[in-house]
Amino acid sequence: MQDAIRIIGIDPGLRRCGWGVIETLGNSLRFVASGTVTSDGDMDLASRLCQLHDGLAEVVHSYQPHEAAVEQTFVNKDAVATLKLGQARGIAMLVPARAGLPVAEYAPNAVKKAVIGVGHGDKKQIHMMLKILMPKSEFKGNDAADALAIAICHAHNRGGDRMRRMLASA
Amino acid sequence: MQDAIRIIGIDPGLRRCGWGVIETLGNSLRFVASGTVTSDGDMDLASRLCQLHDGLAEVVHSYQPHEAAVEQTFVNKDAVATLKLGQARGIAMLVPARAGLPVAEYAPNAVKKAVIGVGHGDKKQIHMMLKILMPKSEFKGNDAADALAIAICHAHNRGGDRMRRMLASA
Repeated sequence: MQDAIRIIGIDPGLRRCGWGVIETLGNSLRFVASGTVTSDGDMDLASRLCQLHDGLAEVVHSYQPHEAAVEQTFVNKDAVATLKLGQARGIAMLVPARAGLPVAEYAPNAVKKAVIGVGHGDKKQIHMMLKILMPKSEFKGNDAADALAIAICHAHNRGGDRMRRMLASA
Repeated sequence: MQDAIRIIGIDPGLRRCGWGVIETLGNSLRFVASGTVTSDGDMDLASRLCQLHDGLAEVVHSYQPHEAAVEQTFVNKDAVATLKLGQARGIAMLVPARAGLPVAEYAPNAVKKAVIGVGHGDKKQIHMMLKILMPKSEFKGNDAADALAIAICHAHNRGGDRMRRMLASA
């Protein structure tokens, strides 16, 4: 008998990093936990990166996921924002990697496609589909919801055709 | 009697992170060590960030600096490059911060101004001034030299007027 694979999805950001932990076994998805790690905007950058690191490290330690998935940050035209996001994203990838987890990356439209069937859609559609795919899922705010969507995207893509069919027919 | 302050300067980059350790006491600057931590371009991003983390953590552990300074990455128009640099920079700031060091940031022109007297100048001028300011300094490549310049910039700015005069008259 196969064991469930526990996945952590991370939606990186300097102010708020969303995280969501799910389990996947065959066709099934199960919600485990979700939340948001925040950094204090009044502190210096290095201290904020430490806050993100320590918060995410605590989540990984508490929930012991087997694999991680991080959103490929949208590269917009604001270079200062891109740099900030890059710094947070470095931490979001480092923490699971240091814990020995493989870390996959998914583009935002791949995440949306996995959860709502198309590459474009608003936050409400993602929230609704999370509730359909995992009725017991709980999330406060968009960051945690996005992180759960990233975890589902990874479950989808690592699991091959069966999961894809299930998502397509949900 | 005052103790010397040991400073680590870091020039962040995903492929190569330069580092340089110096000591400052009153007007004097002393070279301690320099080098470059590299990541393997054939590996996935998370593993590369781990390599940078582990390499820098080893340097901080070996040389036990009291304070750190990291170059404020130049934000250019290439968003993909800015994101990569941001990720590496996140690690470069995290490592000393987690070790309890205060981490200062300096813009590239502030670093050049501290070392060669003006905000613009080429690599050769920096190399030459490093040899004048710290005759025993050794560095292989531009990344390690830049990191030493960043450390000197911090010595300059933390030390107030005396160091500034010394640098101006060097």
